[in-house]
Amino acid sequence: MKRILSGVQPSGNPHLGNYFGAMKNHIEMQNDYESFIFIADYHALTTVKDANKMRESTLHLILDYLALGLDPSKTVFFRQSDIAAHAELKWFFECIIHHGLLDRAHAWKDALEKGKKDPTVGLFTYPVLMAADILLYSPDLVPVGKDQKQHVEIARDIAIKFNNIFGETFKLPEAYIPEESALIKGTDGEKMSKSYGNVIEIFADEQTLKKQVMSIKTDSTALEDPKNPDSCNVFYLYKLFASNEEIHDLSEKYKSGGFGFGDAKKLLLAKILEYFAPYREKRIELEKNLDYINEVLELGAEKAKKVSGELMDQVKERIGYTKKFV
Amino acid sequence: MKRILSGVQPSGNPHLGNYFGAMKNHIEMQNDYESFIFIADYHALTTVKDANKMRESTLHLILDYLALGLDPSKTVFFRQSDIAAHAELKWFFECIIHHGLLDRAHAWKDALEKGKKDPTVGLFTYPVLMAADILLYSPDLVPVGKDQKQHVEIARDIAIKFNNIFGETFKLPEAYIPEESALIKGTDGEKMSKSYGNVIEIFADEQTLKKQVMSIKTDSTALEDPKNPDSCNVFYLYKLFASNEEIHDLSEKYKSGGFGFGDAKKLLLAKILEYFAPYREKRIELEKNLDYINEVLELGAEKAKKVSGELMDQVKERIGYTKKFV
Repeated sequence: MKRILSGVQPSGNPHLGNYFGAMKNHIEMQNDYESFIFIADYHALTTVKDANKMRESTLHLILDYLALGLDPSKTVFFRQSDIAAHAELKWFFECIIHHGLLDRAHAWKDALEKGKKDPTVGLFTYPVLMAADILLYSPDLVPVGKDQKQHVEIARDIAIKFNNIFGETFKLPEAYIPEESALIKGTDGEKMSKSYGNVIEIFADEQTLKKQVMSIKTDSTALEDPKNPDSCNVFYLYKLFASNEEIHDLSEKYKSGGFGFGDAKKLLLAKILEYFAPYREKRIELEKNLDYINEVLELGAEKAKKVSGELMDQVKERIGYTKKFV
Repeated sequence: MKRILSGVQPSGNPHLGNYFGAMKNHIEMQNDYESFIFIADYHALTTVKDANKMRESTLHLILDYLALGLDPSKTVFFRQSDIAAHAELKWFFECIIHHGLLDRAHAWKDALEKGKKDPTVGLFTYPVLMAADILLYSPDLVPVGKDQKQHVEIARDIAIKFNNIFGETFKLPEAYIPEESALIKGTDGEKMSKSYGNVIEIFADEQTLKKQVMSIKTDSTALEDPKNPDSCNVFYLYKLFASNEEIHDLSEKYKSGGFGFGDAKKLLLAKILEYFAPYREKRIELEKNLDYINEVLELGAEKAKKVSGELMDQVKERIGYTKKFV
């Protein structure tokens, strides 16, 4: 069984874009792979400088993934900040790679080109942390979006370099770019993204969820006129949830006229609520059971420590950080 | 009792310059301070890329310090690579400091000015590791040479910045520049340094030691003529070991004539051997008892982990890396 590894950053409340674009795939990996998912809270520190925010967003991320079906007995699910070896290995790598490699990293170049004032050292060195994140668990595959392919390339370059200097130690990971990296459109028809304010949040209360669905932009075709389902964003989102039969039915209603966008939105809202109902219930349960959350984190840390610890023992012997002198 | 912290890098065989310039002071700190000395083997990786060399130079450093009187029940004596928190804290700091701070660090500026080709990332970020090395143990004082004062200044800047953002966490250390940072002259009269090939090694075999002492450069005053002790490097080195009476006696011999530099060198050699005899014996014993060396490292790691671990728990709570959700 191939091993796959993903890092996820704590962010805000998950929306349909997060779910269909990443989380669903992340969670389903546990059925086909030996799956490692870590909460990238070391990385989050490059932007979050507030303990309450860090704590809450981390907790919410854990609740979200568990509610949506991540099974901690199948997926090794852990916090990066529980495994100091990520930072340790980063330093080892920094001692063998050239400054110029990071000068060429996309995020850094972007920051400089956009004239970002006083960028932090973290923004400069984080690709080395990513390389450590990846190589520490010897994954076969690392699922990434097209814009993150460079991270896996840098990790491979570093692995090759380390292996050349100190002897074969790291397995070279492959970037895995999902065929159709589902890009979900938001309520305004643009890519769904928190920063665009066009999201439909899967764990929002019903009132908020309703408001978000009702705010989907439609054209001005009159109620009684026939409508084109294929140009309608409500129909597009409905398709994510409905069966072929249901899709056909709704399509017919659009074309026949006398069926308004408001009616379609109500159908979509019902579908969303129906689809996420068990997850929403589970999340409420989990929220009340933080002991269980702590247990999940302990289990994940233990498993991740075992895998990374064995590799780090090798890495350290290769470097000459002998455990015991004999 | 004030706490003092020093890092020492594994290098070659210690010579009189190392001993009187640093090691002797390091060891004696244990009598007046709560002393922490760590073997900076993380830092050594910036230059040493060979496991055997890393292993041997580390072991030799430990043997040297223990032989010379470091008492592991008084000094917390540990390897940096046994405490991953050094690297972890380095990352936290990287997320709050600006890239420009490191651009201004001496070693990096020197490297660029000297046109060093392809410097590593480690050479760029190591001052952040130094800051972590220091702040992790809340020392009052950090003994440094004048050229290393910037390291403590950077550590202070980082501590202030972290405290401002996340709340009072780190104690500000003071740089402690020994009044007369003993500069020992080598066999050619220049500063004693391995790279100048002018050293007298304190643990070399007697044959080598004799050769090194006999190679001390003197002037061409004839055997029978009076000599000026104050311009003679042999006399200068003799003074490091001899009593006031012995110094007076030798001075008289120089001035009276009929006493050659070769005679003076023999006296110096005898003094060196006498002074280091117990240390040399102890080192031979220790070399045969690697179990004890391993115990010393275990004890040191345990003590260092306790102190650094307590601080890291605080640091992580301040950042929002909560141990347990409640």
